[in-house]
Amino acid sequence: EYIEYNTKPRIVPEKINVHLVPHSHDDVGWLKTVDQYYVGSNNSIRGACVQNVLDSVIASLLDDENRKFIYVEMAFFQRWWRQQSNAKKVKVKKLVDSGQLEFINGGMCMHDEATPHYIDMIDQTTLGHQFIKTEFGQVPRVGWQIDPFGHSAVQAYLLGAEFGFDSLFFARIDYQDRAKRLREKTLEVIWQGSKSLGSSSQIFTGVFPRHYDPPEGFTFEINDVSAPIQDDPLLFDYNVQERVNDFVAAALAQVNVTRTNHIMWLMGTDFRYQYAYSWFRQIDKFIHYVNKDGRLNVLYSTPSIYTDAKYAANESWPLKTDDFFPYADKPNAYWTGYFTSRPAFKKYVRDLSGYYLAARQLEFLRGRDSSGPTTDMLADALAIAQHHDAVSGTQRQHVAADYALRLSMGYLQAEKLVASSLSFLSAAKSSTEKKNPGTKFQQCPLLNISYCPASEARLLSGKSLVVVVYNSLGWKREEVVRVPVSSENVIVKDASGKEVVFQLLPLSEIALRIRNEYVKAYLGRSPRDTAKHVLAFTASVPPLGFSSYVISDTGRTARGLSASYVTSGSMNQNVEVGQGNLKLRYSEEGVKITRHLSTKNQVTAEQSYAYYIGSNGTDKDPQASGAYVFRPDGVLPIKSKEEAQLTIVQGPLFDEVHQELNSWISQITRVYKGKNHAEIEFTIGPIPADDGISKEIITKLTTTMKTNGTFYTDSNGRDFIKRIRDFRTDWDLQVYQPVAGNYYPLNLGIYMQDKTSELSVLVDRAVGGSSLENGQIELMLHRRMQHDDIRGVGEILNETVCLPEGCKGLTIQGKFYVQIDKPGDGAKWRRTFGQEIYSPLLIAFTEQEGDSWINSHKTTFSAFEPSYSLPKNVALLTLQELENGEVLLRLAHLFEVGEDSEYSVMAKVELKKLFHNKKIREVKETSLSGNQEKAEMEKRRLIWKVEGSAGEEVKRGEAVDAEKLVVELVPMEIRTLLIKFDDQIEMVGDKEQQHRL
Amino acid sequence: EYIEYNTKPRIVPEKINVHLVPHSHDDVGWLKTVDQYYVGSNNSIRGACVQNVLDSVIASLLDDENRKFIYVEMAFFQRWWRQQSNAKKVKVKKLVDSGQLEFINGGMCMHDEATPHYIDMIDQTTLGHQFIKTEFGQVPRVGWQIDPFGHSAVQAYLLGAEFGFDSLFFARIDYQDRAKRLREKTLEVIWQGSKSLGSSSQIFTGVFPRHYDPPEGFTFEINDVSAPIQDDPLLFDYNVQERVNDFVAAALAQVNVTRTNHIMWLMGTDFRYQYAYSWFRQIDKFIHYVNKDGRLNVLYSTPSIYTDAKYAANESWPLKTDDFFPYADKPNAYWTGYFTSRPAFKKYVRDLSGYYLAARQLEFLRGRDSSGPTTDMLADALAIAQHHDAVSGTQRQHVAADYALRLSMGYLQAEKLVASSLSFLSAAKSSTEKKNPGTKFQQCPLLNISYCPASEARLLSGKSLVVVVYNSLGWKREEVVRVPVSSENVIVKDASGKEVVFQLLPLSEIALRIRNEYVKAYLGRSPRDTAKHVLAFTASVPPLGFSSYVISDTGRTARGLSASYVTSGSMNQNVEVGQGNLKLRYSEEGVKITRHLSTKNQVTAEQSYAYYIGSNGTDKDPQASGAYVFRPDGVLPIKSKEEAQLTIVQGPLFDEVHQELNSWISQITRVYKGKNHAEIEFTIGPIPADDGISKEIITKLTTTMKTNGTFYTDSNGRDFIKRIRDFRTDWDLQVYQPVAGNYYPLNLGIYMQDKTSELSVLVDRAVGGSSLENGQIELMLHRRMQHDDIRGVGEILNETVCLPEGCKGLTIQGKFYVQIDKPGDGAKWRRTFGQEIYSPLLIAFTEQEGDSWINSHKTTFSAFEPSYSLPKNVALLTLQELENGEVLLRLAHLFEVGEDSEYSVMAKVELKKLFHNKKIREVKETSLSGNQEKAEMEKRRLIWKVEGSAGEEVKRGEAVDAEKLVVELVPMEIRTLLIKFDDQIEMVGDKEQQHRL
Repeated sequence: EYIEYNTKPRIVPEKINVHLVPHSHDDVGWLKTVDQYYVGSNNSIRGACVQNVLDSVIASLLDDENRKFIYVEMAFFQRWWRQQSNAKKVKVKKLVDSGQLEFINGGMCMHDEATPHYIDMIDQTTLGHQFIKTEFGQVPRVGWQIDPFGHSAVQAYLLGAEFGFDSLFFARIDYQDRAKRLREKTLEVIWQGSKSLGSSSQIFTGVFPRHYDPPEGFTFEINDVSAPIQDDPLLFDYNVQERVNDFVAAALAQVNVTRTNHIMWLMGTDFRYQYAYSWFRQIDKFIHYVNKDGRLNVLYSTPSIYTDAKYAANESWPLKTDDFFPYADKPNAYWTGYFTSRPAFKKYVRDLSGYYLAARQLEFLRGRDSSGPTTDMLADALAIAQHHDAVSGTQRQHVAADYALRLSMGYLQAEKLVASSLSFLSAAKSSTEKKNPGTKFQQCPLLNISYCPASEARLLSGKSLVVVVYNSLGWKREEVVRVPVSSENVIVKDASGKEVVFQLLPLSEIALRIRNEYVKAYLGRSPRDTAKHVLAFTASVPPLGFSSYVISDTGRTARGLSASYVTSGSMNQNVEVGQGNLKLRYSEEGVKITRHLSTKNQVTAEQSYAYYIGSNGTDKDPQASGAYVFRPDGVLPIKSKEEAQLTIVQGPLFDEVHQELNSWISQITRVYKGKNHAEIEFTIGPIPADDGISKEIITKLTTTMKTNGTFYTDSNGRDFIKRIRDFRTDWDLQVYQPVAGNYYPLNLGIYMQDKTSELSVLVDRAVGGSSLENGQIELMLHRRMQHDDIRGVGEILNETVCLPEGCKGLTIQGKFYVQIDKPGDGAKWRRTFGQEIYSPLLIAFTEQEGDSWINSHKTTFSAFEPSYSLPKNVALLTLQELENGEVLLRLAHLFEVGEDSEYSVMAKVELKKLFHNKKIREVKETSLSGNQEKAEMEKRRLIWKVEGSAGEEVKRGEAVDAEKLVVELVPMEIRTLLIKFDDQIEMVGDKEQQHRL
Repeated sequence: EYIEYNTKPRIVPEKINVHLVPHSHDDVGWLKTVDQYYVGSNNSIRGACVQNVLDSVIASLLDDENRKFIYVEMAFFQRWWRQQSNAKKVKVKKLVDSGQLEFINGGMCMHDEATPHYIDMIDQTTLGHQFIKTEFGQVPRVGWQIDPFGHSAVQAYLLGAEFGFDSLFFARIDYQDRAKRLREKTLEVIWQGSKSLGSSSQIFTGVFPRHYDPPEGFTFEINDVSAPIQDDPLLFDYNVQERVNDFVAAALAQVNVTRTNHIMWLMGTDFRYQYAYSWFRQIDKFIHYVNKDGRLNVLYSTPSIYTDAKYAANESWPLKTDDFFPYADKPNAYWTGYFTSRPAFKKYVRDLSGYYLAARQLEFLRGRDSSGPTTDMLADALAIAQHHDAVSGTQRQHVAADYALRLSMGYLQAEKLVASSLSFLSAAKSSTEKKNPGTKFQQCPLLNISYCPASEARLLSGKSLVVVVYNSLGWKREEVVRVPVSSENVIVKDASGKEVVFQLLPLSEIALRIRNEYVKAYLGRSPRDTAKHVLAFTASVPPLGFSSYVISDTGRTARGLSASYVTSGSMNQNVEVGQGNLKLRYSEEGVKITRHLSTKNQVTAEQSYAYYIGSNGTDKDPQASGAYVFRPDGVLPIKSKEEAQLTIVQGPLFDEVHQELNSWISQITRVYKGKNHAEIEFTIGPIPADDGISKEIITKLTTTMKTNGTFYTDSNGRDFIKRIRDFRTDWDLQVYQPVAGNYYPLNLGIYMQDKTSELSVLVDRAVGGSSLENGQIELMLHRRMQHDDIRGVGEILNETVCLPEGCKGLTIQGKFYVQIDKPGDGAKWRRTFGQEIYSPLLIAFTEQEGDSWINSHKTTFSAFEPSYSLPKNVALLTLQELENGEVLLRLAHLFEVGEDSEYSVMAKVELKKLFHNKKIREVKETSLSGNQEKAEMEKRRLIWKVEGSAGEEVKRGEAVDAEKLVVELVPMEIRTLLIKFDDQIEMVGDKEQQHRL
């Protein structure tokens, strides 16, 4: 009675081919932490154990060479791989080489596509691809984003085509879009995500007909209720023919909505295959009996085999541009709340992303030392934080705490690395001493709540505070630095001893309350010193380098104390701050920003606050507003009382006005000398919750601009995409949610324009935004819900901060920036100032006796050749020494085609000048994740036939000449180089000098 | 980071040894059918798949030689074994040989201990043991009855010690008993189940402290919530020490209630190990880290290793006698309802058990032919039906249907075999023709509802009906046979043509209604013929043989029609039937049976019906009466109306009185010429259910006997056990359920006695019974519930029969027999007539033209030597030809020590005379399941030290002398022999004759 099943995979061109792809969708944290999902602990929340999945899948693959499995999340695979015996590793490598086990997507996690920054998306995928390359010598060919809630243009072209992916698959698109695509067989398309790179960066993209699980009745996890094939004649309920007919019916239904005679079934879903054989047993049988039946051909397959089959079918495919936002799975369920959910965590991720970019530069400049502190732990933590249930804010509270803990542990290691690099770089003497230099630098991660033990410490007489300011951008920079100080009698000098203009402001009452509460919450103890002032001064720093300043206590009355005065009631109307053509005035609703673009052309943006009432579902549709879904049920304006006070502080560097809208919303609006934008620093929370009403807090800018329903939002901080209110390019939108349905994710910012002006808003983290009326822009800054929105998280999004005396709603703090320009002038500010927001100046402190430190250390440094800086339209994305000593360099053109008259042109970067005293031995251009030669990748790229015109050919920058070492970048191009240096030779100018070892 | 776990099993005598026994308790049908549990289908009822259990367990055992697993239910293992490749079978045999995989208990299922007949318990265990012996050459050493609801004396000594088991383990004992044993460390005892065989049949018995699953927090099935050991330093939540401490604490708690420093943990429970590695991964780790901790020694173990360790500890153990009935897990939850649940199914099992015994004899007498119909399918079906959720009646309705379907399919095969054997044995000519003889015998499985197409068919002129009557007992037998006939003008002649006294009775109205309804329900069509009468005649049949009779239609008015008359109202008092010293009179409550034991000593038993109201739980205790639990809430008598009619039918063979108690209870009481017992045939149902009240129907016999609270009930049909109302031998019983707590299971019967008389009641199936007041005996005959009793079946016990026009409550029909004797005289009747109830005469029909059949066939046969029959105190339990041609013979002494003055003595059986014309070549005495030499088994038997006296040595029958071939049997002894015949030689008397081939 032993039956040998024939499951040899083969494609039968003339038949319908059903590609069965066994997979397990493993969230790197969601209802449980990543480690709990891996080990299978905390099962009372959800039974899931990835260790069981991988152990049992490998066992089943080893049992039968015909079986295949794809694995996606390297955070889990790496955890498993480290625990295996060498013997087992040899066997698994064979499975990978033979294609039985194929890595798909291959990032550390399946990152979200709305709320991550593109640099983090590149880094986390690269970390996974490097692991796959080093351990298995393999290069993933397929993008696999089957669960993220909407899909970004950057995912398609940058995190897809530029990784050398041949195809991209996902499941969640708008239900109206899906209905149309099902009707018109346009679920599979060629997606050109970038207007600038066009067909040079297109990718075959498949949307699954329903979701990422098998058709009804074909799931075979332990205890699943699908009827298994019973083919033992000695037992009851023999059902082979019945089940074969079910299979054929389900396949034909899908053929009906798919081009070519190839369809793919995802044989798996969340955390399945805990006992893989329970699935493989049935799949073996279905393949055997359905092929014997003959109406179809069924085979074990993978997404790359499926992609090759689609390609071989020589079909021509519809063209897709822009993106798939926002996502809605039902009329009242627009998943646009998560663009803002957990704003504090979204800010923490963005802060550490910028810090990680700087830390990797400093690690390279010092030379990587695996024994000491490295940036690796931060890299891991940031990678996991990009998961579509992490930075998205859609995870359980205890999982959010786990992500934050990993980030803070990673930060501590990176902080030590940064301190030791700055010591190394500032050490004057010979290189040996450089390795373990004396300076103990301190840094202040809680500067954002005006807490910095280093700068607040009382300076003993004769002592002064050295402030080293590091700039990780490739351009020279002038920027105001703010540090809390305990004494009023301070002055600031530069390294040459020359006094520097500074401004001393009183710490506001609100700032002090936040500082004390949150230091207690985070560090478990109150601040020791009682800083009462903030010292601000302008630091000017060379590209990829640092400058030093000295703060000392004169013992005499403060000279720099800025004048501040208070007004209230009707007096507030005539308060005006700002110089030149940028004026700020105030109303009970917020600030009024006026820009005089020309004598005849001035534009005023009136700011206001409001909150949407989050629906808790109606009897017609129980859908509530929750962690994912934004379903407003009315909006209430927030206004301060007339007699509310304004506190105005003016000084040589900037003017700022403190305004309290109500007991839980306050803001400080600043204008800086010589800058044309207004900086608005908001403090929101604890959002009142006793009334049982969900609240989604927004701020709105209203102008008279005739924007014709059109506005522009960025895709993961890169390309801007044109949005039109109540409109979708791919289908005629039926509007059921006029507010939620017009919300889009922002990472860089949002702008609108009309014939006479252009208003841009830049943001300091991922946030949801929209333009609901002409001339208007709104941002959703914070949310506190009273209901769950039934999408699986099963917990109400209600963030609190807990102190001994109890917990209360979380207060969040942050900034957005507004600039009004002539049409077309906004791009320069958006791109350049956007870089400054992403990479804030990195500040380190050390005390010195007299001028001892200044005199015995290098007080300024730049990695570049003196006076060289990157072209204005180019940014240095990555400068990182890999474990094998090679240096990974990424350069990015910052402008799209036609975005800026001056900068949307080819840029050139001279590599030699980037590495001041290093001899470049070899430069290899690679894919975006550095796992394959670029030329190789281009040769393998599949050229698809596209219905209609695919747009003219876009020429990229020339290959890097080994001698000239100049990198050309066309608009929006990012080039990735692996550089080997000759560490025996030190370059002094153009001359090579043997290292004195 | 790869960790090698040290799990080499070893015992450390000076430490506490925790024996970890991985197991999976797999019910052979309960909520799902056996095949659905095996294949893992119908998971919507309960997720369970034994195929996954065995596949994944074997894989884990092959992965690590230290791991062990025990498997219990051969019905599942055999299903799996048949599906394996030869390569896999070789590997599994090694696992069994090395002891990694050990078969425990080893029956086809884990049979119930209250409701099966001991012959079925022997047969089902033997079927499993033969499979294990043939495939693996192994002999199971341990009884494992971890789920049955109470434990029988016969299980301990007969189905334990006599199988050569060294120990017996189970979990469910009365909660008051458990509390006492926990306090006094008497959970492990030496159990002498048989008063007659005493210490020669004792067994080490272990009751688990709580249940058959691991201590709280140590279950590791997929998705279980126990905390796994997290020992990867690179992951969060490292918890090795914490979990080791939990383990040690749980172990010490159990040591505290167990003698010696060996304790056993059952690492598993219902249908667990669907992915075995999920358990083994954690058990490996616990062994590794707990042994490293050192406070305990932990090892992979099995119940036999544990037993040997207990034995080696040289401890002396408390003595246990009698049994563990009834079982209660809570004050108001006595599991005594299931003694009766599903009475129709219990009767079907008992009927087919008797039929199977006869069919195996006929299969032997004809010579087994595997190509033709065999008794194998019936053997399998009966084996499964003994499962503790099958004959117990505690399964879901659709599973009950599956068991019944298997039994009926098995019966059909056995029916064909019986027909062909009778044709073979009755064929006159040479043996070749014997192989495919002409006679087409018909049988009538629905005789019990007076339906028999063969006997009802109109006899065409010149035709007559041959009735062959087979007697499977070892004694000559005279018994009344009843068949329905369509014509009144019939006469009966014996084979010699001599007329035989017969009686013709009208079919009662009730009998006709039942016949039509149930033939339609079972066969899907109404009876073709309209039989109106029942023809009864006395058949006299030789031992292990048959006689033939002929029924022919005289065409003239009936001569044998018995007179019948009807009375009603007050006239009923003076109705009296019966001859000699046995008289039956009637009241509105039932029959009054009077026995005149001597001129001065007469006893009257007054019968009555009543029904208990089944509680549906109270607010104090929600426990309801259900499939398992009997919790009465009051009792209501059932009386017929005065004017109810009595129909009296008298004739030469027997008198019978038809009585209707109400619209759904009626009975026929019979007294046979020359017999001293009364036969009561009851028809009960459909039990009214519209009032929403659960009803449990009983019949009661009330006498003035002074029984001093004492009565006797049988253990699985063998040894009688003394019961005392509201009393337990092992502890002072606190009485909360005075009715349910005094119910005991009956399979043979129940009796009570005082100084002057003894009243015995024999039953026709497993049924619950008790004696709630002195001189009283009651039987619970049927139950129909309105609630579930929350013990897992999750379905209300509400049996119905469905016809096209709808379903209604199930009617059940059956008999019980009452005899009143002088004290001590009851045993003969109970034992002898008990055999006749178990083995009814087997009747087969064939039509003949004139006397054609009678003249051309052997009309009588006996396997024994002419005039030989078994001693009155011995029964032939088994006469069966095994697949390998050997013949399995079991002889059983029917009386206990001191039970009967005349028969409780040594008996002798002459084997030569049992096999009339066969030459015995070799006789080997074996264990009860024929899987090992008896002498070998006795040599290996462990001799345990027992606290107090173990009772004097019981000498068994001498070994069978190879020449004399005489088998000695002491009271209650059963001996099992494997016999080989010399099929070349045919014995004629004492002379050997060469077979003429």
